Amino acid sequence: MDRVGIIGVGMTKFGERWKKGLRDLIAEAGLKTIQDANITGDKIDAIYGGSMSAGRFVGQEHIGAVIADSMGLNPIPSSRVEAACASGGLALREAYLSIKGGEYNVVVAGGVEKMTDSCTEEASLTLGGAGDQEWEVFNGATFPGLYALIARRHMHEYGTTEEQMAEVSVKNHANAAKNPLAQFQFEVSREQVMKSPKVADPLKLLDCSPITDGAAATVLASEEVAKEYCDDPVWIDASAQATDSLAVHDRKSITGLNAAKVATEKVFKKSSYDRSEIDLAEVHDCFSIAELCALEDMGFVKKGEAGKAMEEGRFNLNAELPINTSGGLKGCGHPVGATGIKQAIEITKQLRGEAGKRQVDEAEVGLTHNVGGSGATAILHILSGGR
Amino acid sequence: MDRVGIIGVGMTKFGERWKKGLRDLIAEAGLKTIQDANITGDKIDAIYGGSMSAGRFVGQEHIGAVIADSMGLNPIPSSRVEAACASGGLALREAYLSIKGGEYNVVVAGGVEKMTDSCTEEASLTLGGAGDQEWEVFNGATFPGLYALIARRHMHEYGTTEEQMAEVSVKNHANAAKNPLAQFQFEVSREQVMKSPKVADPLKLLDCSPITDGAAATVLASEEVAKEYCDDPVWIDASAQATDSLAVHDRKSITGLNAAKVATEKVFKKSSYDRSEIDLAEVHDCFSIAELCALEDMGFVKKGEAGKAMEEGRFNLNAELPINTSGGLKGCGHPVGATGIKQAIEITKQLRGEAGKRQVDEAEVGLTHNVGGSGATAILHILSGGR
Repeated sequence: MDRVGIIGVGMTKFGERWKKGLRDLIAEAGLKTIQDANITGDKIDAIYGGSMSAGRFVGQEHIGAVIADSMGLNPIPSSRVEAACASGGLALREAYLSIKGGEYNVVVAGGVEKMTDSCTEEASLTLGGAGDQEWEVFNGATFPGLYALIARRHMHEYGTTEEQMAEVSVKNHANAAKNPLAQFQFEVSREQVMKSPKVADPLKLLDCSPITDGAAATVLASEEVAKEYCDDPVWIDASAQATDSLAVHDRKSITGLNAAKVATEKVFKKSSYDRSEIDLAEVHDCFSIAELCALEDMGFVKKGEAGKAMEEGRFNLNAELPINTSGGLKGCGHPVGATGIKQAIEITKQLRGEAGKRQVDEAEVGLTHNVGGSGATAILHILSGGR
Repeated sequence: MDRVGIIGVGMTKFGERWKKGLRDLIAEAGLKTIQDANITGDKIDAIYGGSMSAGRFVGQEHIGAVIADSMGLNPIPSSRVEAACASGGLALREAYLSIKGGEYNVVVAGGVEKMTDSCTEEASLTLGGAGDQEWEVFNGATFPGLYALIARRHMHEYGTTEEQMAEVSVKNHANAAKNPLAQFQFEVSREQVMKSPKVADPLKLLDCSPITDGAAATVLASEEVAKEYCDDPVWIDASAQATDSLAVHDRKSITGLNAAKVATEKVFKKSSYDRSEIDLAEVHDCFSIAELCALEDMGFVKKGEAGKAMEEGRFNLNAELPINTSGGLKGCGHPVGATGIKQAIEITKQLRGEAGKRQVDEAEVGLTHNVGGSGATAILHILSGGR
C-alpha cells in the first residue's frame, strides 16, 4: 500500500485576531502551507477543511467553497467536514483516505475557526452544539459543566486531585511559552491555577482552554509525489476514528472516553508502531481533566494513575513522553476547527526537527488525539518521520 | 476497479414536519434504509451525513455523532460533511470514495435538515450562509435575489421568458403530485405560477423551492458485499465535484454555473456512459431558472435553448429525457442537507422499477446534479442499474 506524506505545514498565530476575518485566517494559513510545501496551486487536486460552527460564529457556511475561493484554487473539489472540536482531525483523515484510496495525489487538509466575533454567552451556546442540544445545553449544561462532571467522578473513583489537574495547565503553559504561534506565551504556576476563578467546580479558569481565532493547514501527497517535493516527508502511518453517545449521561462510565479507547485500539492495529515507540503526542486538553483521561484512554498510564504521573513530570518536555509540546489547547489556544490540524503540524515540526526551543530529542514517531464534544468523536493519527 | 453499489434507500416524507425533531427525522430515514437494505447494524462500517446548517437551524452541530447516536450505531466512525445545499451529494460522494478506496465495505450516506423551527427571516439569513456572507448577504442579497440576477441575465442574453421558467415548476409539481413523499403533492398551472407573488423579480413564489424538513439515507456497499444483499444493486458509475467563486459577482458569466460544467466534464470522463445514454436526471431546481441553467451546463441542450425545450415538454415524465421525476426541489421539497441523497434515492427507485405512478419506462442510467449555494459547489453522480 502506498504511503501518504505531509509535505507542507502552515498556521496563523492563534489568539484574539481582532483584525482578521475568516477568509484572512484561511488565506494566511493556506499560503504558508503551500510555500512550505514548495508546490504550485495547479498541482493541488482537492481540499478538505474542518470547521465546527462557522455558521453560528460568523454566519458563513459552505466552508469548503470559502477555502477554495480564499486560496484561489477554484474549480478543484473542496469539502468541509465537521466533527465539532475534532473537525480538524477529520479533515486530516478524509484527506489521507482520499489519497490512500487513489482519488487524489495532492490534497490540502486545513481547519479554521473565527470565534471571537461572538460574545461569550453566544460562544458558549454555540460550543454547546458539540454536545447534546436537547438534553444537555437546553437544560443548562455548558462544556465546562460537562467536563466538571467527568473530573468530579474521576476524583471520586481514583483519588485524582485538583492539584494534579493543575499540573496539566502548568506543563502546557510552559510549552506554550516556547511557541511563537501560541495564544498564551507565558508560564503559570500551580498556585495560579489553583487560585484562578472557579468556572465549574472543580474546574477553574486556568483548567479551561480558551476561545481562539486561528487557521492551520497541511499539504498531503501520495508517496510518489511526496518524494518529488520533499526529501524526508513525515508519513501518516495510521488513522482511526470512533464515536460515542452525544450526551455524557448515556455512557456506562464517564471517567474516560470510550470513543478514544476504540480509536486507540484501531489506530495501533493499523500502525507499524506500538505504544512504546511513540516519542511524543498532542492530545486534546480542552480541560485539564481531559488530558488525564486521554493518557489513560490511550494506555500510556494505567487507569486512574494519570494524575500522579502528571505530578511526577513524566509528560514534560524532554521527559519520557512529552505531551502537548505545542502548548496544547490550553496554552496554544483552541480555534475548534483548526486544533486537529495544529496537532499534526506540531508533530510534523517535531519530527522534522524544526520545533525550536520546544524540540524533543530524537523524535521519530508522534501521535495526535483529537476529540469532538465531550467525547462523541475521537480521531487519532500516528505520524512517523525522522530527520 | 471494484464497483460500489446502492443496496438500500429510505427517506422521510418531506414537508413541514412540526412534530418531528432532527433526531426523529434521522432515525426514521435511517431505519427505513437499513430495512430496505435488509442488513443489520453490525455490518455497517461508517456513516457520512450531510447537513448544511443544523447549528443555526436547531443549535446542534456534531451531526456525524448525532446520526450514529440516533441510529444506535456507536462506536463506528460517523462524519458530517457540508457543501451548503450540496451537502447530501457530498455525503454520497465521500461514502462512495471511502468504499472505492478500500477503507470500508458498507457505509450509510445520509442527509438531513430541520428547517421549519426557524422563522422565515432567520431561515433566509441562514440560507444566505451558502453564499458570500460578507459581500452578498450583509448587503441584502437573498438567495432568490441572487438567482433573480441569473434569471434576468439569461433572459437578456438568450430571450428566455418568464413563461418558460414557469414551465419548470409546472412539470415538477406534476411529478410531485405522483410522489407520496413529496411536500407538494398537487399540480400547478402556468397561470398560477405567473400570477403568484413576486419574490425577487422575475422570480415568483412558485419559481422558488420551499423550506422543508426531511431526511434521506442510502446504504452503499462494495461490489462483493452488495451482491450478498441484493440481486441487482444500483451501481454508482461515476462521481465528480467542482467549485466556483462563492460570490456571484466574481464570475465571468452568470448565465450558467461553471462548477456544474467542470463537474459534468469530469463525471462523463469517469463514466462508462455518455450523455446520450442518460435516461433520466434529478437536477438542482432550487429556482426554476436553475433547472434551465443545469440542462445547458450539462450539455443536454444547447446554451440558451433550455427555456424553449422546456416549453416543448421535452423533459416531462416519459418524454425524451425526464427531469426531476421526484418533483425536484420545487415539488418534492428542499431540506437542504437531504436533497442530494433524495436525488440518488429517486434515481435508484427508478432504476429498480419501484417509482410507482412516476415510473420512467426502461430507465437504466440516471444522473444526479446537486448544487451548493449559487453554484460555488456542484456534485454530479451517474447511477446505473436495470431490473
